[in-house]
Amino acid sequence: MKGDEIVIMGIDPGSLITGYAILKANSSKILPITYGNIKTSSKNDLQKRIYKIHTEVDKIINQYNPDQCSLEKIFYAKNVRSVLSLGEARGAILISLEQNKIPTYEYTPRKIKKSVVGNGRASKKQVQYMVNAILNTKIDKKSSYDISDALAIGICHYNKIKPNL
Amino acid sequence: MKGDEIVIMGIDPGSLITGYAILKANSSKILPITYGNIKTSSKNDLQKRIYKIHTEVDKIINQYNPDQCSLEKIFYAKNVRSVLSLGEARGAILISLEQNKIPTYEYTPRKIKKSVVGNGRASKKQVQYMVNAILNTKIDKKSSYDISDALAIGICHYNKIKPNL
Repeated sequence: MKGDEIVIMGIDPGSLITGYAILKANSSKILPITYGNIKTSSKNDLQKRIYKIHTEVDKIINQYNPDQCSLEKIFYAKNVRSVLSLGEARGAILISLEQNKIPTYEYTPRKIKKSVVGNGRASKKQVQYMVNAILNTKIDKKSSYDISDALAIGICHYNKIKPNL
Repeated sequence: MKGDEIVIMGIDPGSLITGYAILKANSSKILPITYGNIKTSSKNDLQKRIYKIHTEVDKIINQYNPDQCSLEKIFYAKNVRSVLSLGEARGAILISLEQNKIPTYEYTPRKIKKSVVGNGRASKKQVQYMVNAILNTKIDKKSSYDISDALAIGICHYNKIKPNL
């Protein structure tokens, strides 16, 4: 890969499963470097769960040195309990990002789907299909939606900054 | 103060204002050591705001070495945006607590009011009145509700553990 390269981290936050992706990009190309998820057990104390998300995100940052982070932002939720948990996971992630001085950009699910699939109301399956097409990956399990979502969140940010690379 | 002493930290989390209190107690008495609030500016980046809450809570823990923490827990909220922000603040606080290995206990607003005022539906003004009566403090501003709430959260935990002190 030539030209001005940038390493983008995409994160799909969740209190039980947080998807993450590291992507390398320049003005003409975007490649996946690594991706996966951070799982926490609901059997553990809340504070231990939240702390695990923080330390795991920290490790990924230290290993791959992302220049920028792209994070999903929500405005609606099924219930207070789930959005509170999501907020706690986001708080843990935001601390890792700020401690490592990584500029963070937030995108709504609608914006991410529009950017990656071309349709703001696309399903997670459609997002996964387009992520595989764009990155030449083979993520095909329903259980990996958090991972394809994290990659999509990274691609969405790339599409936005691409003209300036 | 004699007997087995315990230092309790009470926290009323909020993304713009987080109230905190440090209380020292034994089987017969509870005394306020310090209290105040952590204010963040909505003009700042979200991640800087969340990080400030984390570092300020950290400082208070390092200065007063609380043995246990009492934290307000909610189950309802006006809107998704406010509960997401609250969750982010809670995430930042939970990381400070876990990093410092402080056992944390959560109480609902109803439980706290019931414990301190005797009425689960008490107003913030009534909570402040009872906090002043119990601790001999003189907190009397509406703008200090977050502080009297944090003290009340600490008192609620004390009332629960008192029989075992």
